[in-house]
Amino acid sequence: MTTHTAASLAERFGLTVRGDGNVALHGVGTLAEAGPDQLAFLANPKYRNQLASTRAGAVVMKEADAEGYEGTVLLARDPYVAFARISALFAPIPERAPGIHPSASIDPSAEVAADAHVGAFVAVGARSRIEAGAVVGPGCVIGEDCVIGAGSELVARVTLVTRVRLGQRVRIHPGAVLGAAGFGIAMDNGHWINVPQVGGVVIGDDCDIGANTCIDRGAIEDTVLEEDVRLDNHIQIGHNAFIGAHTAMAGGVAVAGSARIGRYCMIAGMAGIAGHLEICDRVVITAMSMVTSSIREPGEYSSGLPLMDNRTWRRNAARFRHLDELARRIPRADK
Amino acid sequence: MTTHTAASLAERFGLTVRGDGNVALHGVGTLAEAGPDQLAFLANPKYRNQLASTRAGAVVMKEADAEGYEGTVLLARDPYVAFARISALFAPIPERAPGIHPSASIDPSAEVAADAHVGAFVAVGARSRIEAGAVVGPGCVIGEDCVIGAGSELVARVTLVTRVRLGQRVRIHPGAVLGAAGFGIAMDNGHWINVPQVGGVVIGDDCDIGANTCIDRGAIEDTVLEEDVRLDNHIQIGHNAFIGAHTAMAGGVAVAGSARIGRYCMIAGMAGIAGHLEICDRVVITAMSMVTSSIREPGEYSSGLPLMDNRTWRRNAARFRHLDELARRIPRADK
Amino acid sequence: MTTHTAASLAERFGLTVRGDGNVALHGVGTLAEAGPDQLAFLANPKYRNQLASTRAGAVVMKEADAEGYEGTVLLARDPYVAFARISALFAPIPERAPGIHPSASIDPSAEVAADAHVGAFVAVGARSRIEAGAVVGPGCVIGEDCVIGAGSELVARVTLVTRVRLGQRVRIHPGAVLGAAGFGIAMDNGHWINVPQVGGVVIGDDCDIGANTCIDRGAIEDTVLEEDVRLDNHIQIGHNAFIGAHTAMAGGVAVAGSARIGRYCMIAGMAGIAGHLEICDRVVITAMSMVTSSIREPGEYSSGLPLMDNRTWRRNAARFRHLDELARRIPRADK
Repeated sequence: MTTHTAASLAERFGLTVRGDGNVALHGVGTLAEAGPDQLAFLANPKYRNQLASTRAGAVVMKEADAEGYEGTVLLARDPYVAFARISALFAPIPERAPGIHPSASIDPSAEVAADAHVGAFVAVGARSRIEAGAVVGPGCVIGEDCVIGAGSELVARVTLVTRVRLGQRVRIHPGAVLGAAGFGIAMDNGHWINVPQVGGVVIGDDCDIGANTCIDRGAIEDTVLEEDVRLDNHIQIGHNAFIGAHTAMAGGVAVAGSARIGRYCMIAGMAGIAGHLEICDRVVITAMSMVTSSIREPGEYSSGLPLMDNRTWRRNAARFRHLDELARRIPRADK
Repeated sequence: MTTHTAASLAERFGLTVRGDGNVALHGVGTLAEAGPDQLAFLANPKYRNQLASTRAGAVVMKEADAEGYEGTVLLARDPYVAFARISALFAPIPERAPGIHPSASIDPSAEVAADAHVGAFVAVGARSRIEAGAVVGPGCVIGEDCVIGAGSELVARVTLVTRVRLGQRVRIHPGAVLGAAGFGIAMDNGHWINVPQVGGVVIGDDCDIGANTCIDRGAIEDTVLEEDVRLDNHIQIGHNAFIGAHTAMAGGVAVAGSARIGRYCMIAGMAGIAGHLEICDRVVITAMSMVTSSIREPGEYSSGLPLMDNRTWRRNAARFRHLDELARRIPRADK
Repeated sequence: MTTHTAASLAERFGLTVRGDGNVALHGVGTLAEAGPDQLAFLANPKYRNQLASTRAGAVVMKEADAEGYEGTVLLARDPYVAFARISALFAPIPERAPGIHPSASIDPSAEVAADAHVGAFVAVGARSRIEAGAVVGPGCVIGEDCVIGAGSELVARVTLVTRVRLGQRVRIHPGAVLGAAGFGIAMDNGHWINVPQVGGVVIGDDCDIGANTCIDRGAIEDTVLEEDVRLDNHIQIGHNAFIGAHTAMAGGVAVAGSARIGRYCMIAGMAGIAGHLEICDRVVITAMSMVTSSIREPGEYSSGLPLMDNRTWRRNAARFRHLDELARRIPRADK
């Protein structure tokens, strides 16, 4: 069992301890459920009222929130960040011993670093390379000409179809599919033909890619994620999209082909972004919004509608069908 | 070939037979396509006009619908339920013999009940347990510290990442991923860091989880589905969400982290539910709605817009951009 | 390295060459990036301005666009189609030698054509058949009673659960799940029961099915895709849906159960289509639209809202809550 005192954590992470620094902590918990040997945190003001009744051995929070609290406190400028760092000390680390599982099927032309881990039922195709310390969990399929950079982890059942190059410390969750053929079709005499998708996928260092997320390979050039892009589950990235560094997307977002998204953007859940447009740096898109043209100014953007009881919604939605006519009947301001 | 007479089915399921009870039935069919040796049903009034021409050997329906119909009828208060129960008698049951496929890779510390079925290319991690009569189909990956309760079925290619505990008679369809790390990130000096996700996932008895659905593990405490929750395909359940018993969600719904949803709710397809909110019991959300705040009254709720021809839609949508200005120009009722 | 001259390509594909027909081409590139030994194309007028600076050895385009361009041109009525055909000559073709990988697990009652390819860790269930020249990539799971038609390709990690019959030259991308039990449930005394899903899935010739897409099997009859249907990633097709030939759907579309969609329809990304309705041939649905009733006229249809800055959106959305009341206050045109 891992044990740290509040004082030792404060020293390690540059925090200020207030109260009993000798309290011994064995793990983390929520404000509502943590016991006297656990560390909790307060970052979302929504949960501030839980401070009065918490039994946590210590709480990470901002100085302003700590006023009047009598328990042990670790003061942090950003309590969530501090908590994340401390929590990593207590987190269980699954065993992934170096070596190749005897069931794995590795093409003779592939390279696997001596200290990489390759799990059960992993297939690795021709000319692919798994670099130092990388982990390829059970059931992954790596096609031809892929690179898994040093320290990267494919948790389990990840597919890299072909020409997918991952940087270092990339983590990919189960069910994700990178490098599938982009959706490129052309109508020829009443029948679709495929446009060959000869590009690849390039993923920068420290990216994190969620479960069942898809990143298609490019039609000619590559689909690109710069470093530290964070994708939640069920995200779709079309061929030749480009996602700038440090951009984060929540579950269910779809980005169509050849869209170019800037750095430090935040795209909330189920937003849709059309193809062949540009979004500049530091744009926030709220949930379920539809983006159909370029955005050239940082800021927060939205579409979608708020929830109503069904009767009210029906009446309003019926009016929307005639909004233009209604608008024409409104007297002009200048009349 | 399984054969039942209409009369024997009536007796078995407490229904009333009208017409020829000796008709022999070998299977089920739709009203439009069933033959004289098949049972059909009428539940959706949309299909009532098919009754006149059906060739079905017998039809399950409500008494009110049976008036004037001359064929054999099984009268039921709830024809859909009665049909479901009867249909199960005829349904083909795939062979899943007890035992562990020789290709499976089972950690020495894992436990597998003698009468459980473990299919080809299944990996089971440390300290996981597969209970009596459970079926783990081909290609599943079970990580560390998981439990698959008695009589549960993982159809094929399901991933339980870590700390996922399934109750009894849970069924999970292919491609589903339970227990992946929740999307917990904190921005630290311009770079994202991961917040360790040390919780697990708890799934109650009789839950059904659709293909390619994702249920992330909790950040600190567990993500929870109570008993008899029914999730369709492509659903996303964020970390620490709580879904009450008997709630059903159609395809493509996303529930963000720490949302708490009540019992007997019905969430239609592609609805989005924001995080850190509560929805009470018996709430119905219509398709593609966006829920961004708590719902405290049972009832039906909606957002979204109805379909229009593109020209009309363009005009109306353009007006929506200025709806607030337009509204200000409308004369007050009291003027 | 494959090499073709512009003149030989023109002859092969019935195009007209203008400029130096002897230019040797080794591959394809974009207008912006192609070098003197690569072929580029111009189809989207958005990229016409790149013509002035392109270094491409030859460019496929329409005659109208070629005016004033001094480089080598391949004139085509449909440059995108011509490019697609030419590009296929240069595209790398992964090696898929005939034969069954030694790790594969094939039920004794299954049939595999001698020249089919079955990859590592593939499981094939009872009575399934893999026809001539078909490719079943690594990690696929084929259940009972499935057919994989001649020349079809399951790229990797595809699941056909049961009773899935694929036509010829069907391609299915990783993570797709066909034939999972449809979402058929009935409420019986406060508890859900499953309605057995005894139908199958039928996929016509030349269909293309995207990564992580799901096509559920029918409740009684089959779920059907006619020939040449093109589905992008993350699409959900509910039980007993019917999709007409040559219809294409972009990423994230969901089609609920028993919907019937015509031929040559185009459904843009993240649109939702309710169940038990009909859409006629040649309907276009724009992105994120919601279709809740039948469409009987060809044409383009939309719902959804355009993006706004968040402040403006908040004001407009708040007004939408009261749109019906507002409308009642607008003076009638005839007053």
